[in-house]
Amino acid sequence: MNDVGNDDYKKSVGFLGVEGSYSHKAFTQYFDSSFKGCGYKSFRDIFENLKLNNICYAVLPIENSSTGGITEVYDLFLKYDFYIIGEECVKVDHNLLGVMGAKIEDIQTVYSHSQGISQCEEFFLSYPDWKLIPFESTAGSAKFVQSSNDSSIACVAAREAASLYGLNILKENICSSYNYTRFVIISRNESQNSVNDKISIQLSLSHTAGSLFKVLRHFEENNINMLKIESRPVKGKPWEYNFFIDFTGNVSEDATKTMLNEIKRESVALKFLGNYKSHCIKDSNNREDL
Amino acid sequence: MNDVGNDDYKKSVGFLGVEGSYSHKAFTQYFDSSFKGCGYKSFRDIFENLKLNNICYAVLPIENSSTGGITEVYDLFLKYDFYIIGEECVKVDHNLLGVMGAKIEDIQTVYSHSQGISQCEEFFLSYPDWKLIPFESTAGSAKFVQSSNDSSIACVAAREAASLYGLNILKENICSSYNYTRFVIISRNESQNSVNDKISIQLSLSHTAGSLFKVLRHFEENNINMLKIESRPVKGKPWEYNFFIDFTGNVSEDATKTMLNEIKRESVALKFLGNYKSHCIKDSNNREDL
Repeated sequence: MNDVGNDDYKKSVGFLGVEGSYSHKAFTQYFDSSFKGCGYKSFRDIFENLKLNNICYAVLPIENSSTGGITEVYDLFLKYDFYIIGEECVKVDHNLLGVMGAKIEDIQTVYSHSQGISQCEEFFLSYPDWKLIPFESTAGSAKFVQSSNDSSIACVAAREAASLYGLNILKENICSSYNYTRFVIISRNESQNSVNDKISIQLSLSHTAGSLFKVLRHFEENNINMLKIESRPVKGKPWEYNFFIDFTGNVSEDATKTMLNEIKRESVALKFLGNYKSHCIKDSNNREDL
Repeated sequence: MNDVGNDDYKKSVGFLGVEGSYSHKAFTQYFDSSFKGCGYKSFRDIFENLKLNNICYAVLPIENSSTGGITEVYDLFLKYDFYIIGEECVKVDHNLLGVMGAKIEDIQTVYSHSQGISQCEEFFLSYPDWKLIPFESTAGSAKFVQSSNDSSIACVAAREAASLYGLNILKENICSSYNYTRFVIISRNESQNSVNDKISIQLSLSHTAGSLFKVLRHFEENNINMLKIESRPVKGKPWEYNFFIDFTGNVSEDATKTMLNEIKRESVALKFLGNYKSHCIKDSNNREDL
């Protein structure tokens, strides 16, 4: 365990994969250059190292605009007691990368993070014979392709990964042009700041008819805007669900306090996941600013 | 394209994978022995073959009680116009299988469908060095392990797959004992029957505050029980969502008709996905009957 008082600890940030991954990009976008990133091989490793004080913060993908919620991350929130202190959106510009000299017609196998593969599924329909193999991260798959020196394999990764690992872009922009991943920044301590305008909670509701409606009524009555609802199964209780809800507000505001109390009374359990500054704004006319 | 009038067509059912897969089990549980199953390699292949009249029905996993909605299947519902005509729950009893003579301490690599790997993640925590590789189906991975004749590889699959493919059970019941997968049966034509008691719809709502609340109010006012809500991203419109909602009722009932009309008025679009007999009942005291 690190000394939580020292500067190295206070500037350490966990992320998935290696340099060149989208998680690494989110880390460099959110934190200034005085912070040090630590790459991990799995989301669980990241949560575990945050718990052990080996890192002070972590950057985790929570949602992709094409494939939806990153369910593994949602489920880990229930197992650990950390707070969301910020969010960051990264534009995803997947490319098909191969070793120098490789041609697209030679490719037989493609590696990437399972999300990278899913986000490019329309592109892969034109290559039904390719074997698609999930890998721990997009940038990790680029590193693997480089080390293989095999012109029959390729990977799906960011443009940065091509230059970092000396790979050739066989085909650029192979996913939807409106493809973004939303990352959350988590920490052991919550953020308290008047600029915070977004709140995340997790609710366990009684499984009686109308329990979700009763909760949502409080948003309406307090004029609070719900941004997202994600349902996740309750482990060991088939066909019962937990709900993760994001909404606008600051915990110092009266309406927000009132509503949180009302919802708490109505729920079996309410877990406060954090109040932070929103970064991903729903605006159809100005998507480049996401 | 088949002759849709002939008996072979009327008795043909698509499912994922090969004999011994959970989808195959759902097929044999739901349909009597006069029906013929056709295994496919991907969910998209199944939808495509149903569209081409190569099969008359298909059995698709829609939700697992541990890992949640099968998002790829939800998204395919938006691309095709089929109806849900029934559902079937299958108890999932994953086992670790290897070739005859293999021992658990020899295993280095484990293959299975990505769902099989996720559902056993707690078990795999004890074997952090194992490489976990997603495969097209659980039974397909069993067939692959058999053909490899390699004692360092194993798969996660049902007990039936062990006997079908001559494999040894290295460890039984490696997932949660309350692990069920809910399958839907789909067809080109909707089911109309007075015993149908469950309805599925898909909603596109305006992205103004409170639009989901306004829809859920109609369930409350008409005393209709919502069973499940699943949100999925709208492709190409970051941070906008479609909702898939399951609720109790029969389309011939007045309250149901009234509510569907009210919701339709309130939504940008409502897609009716089917009215069918429920099979997966939420009952904490009697889970074996699911």
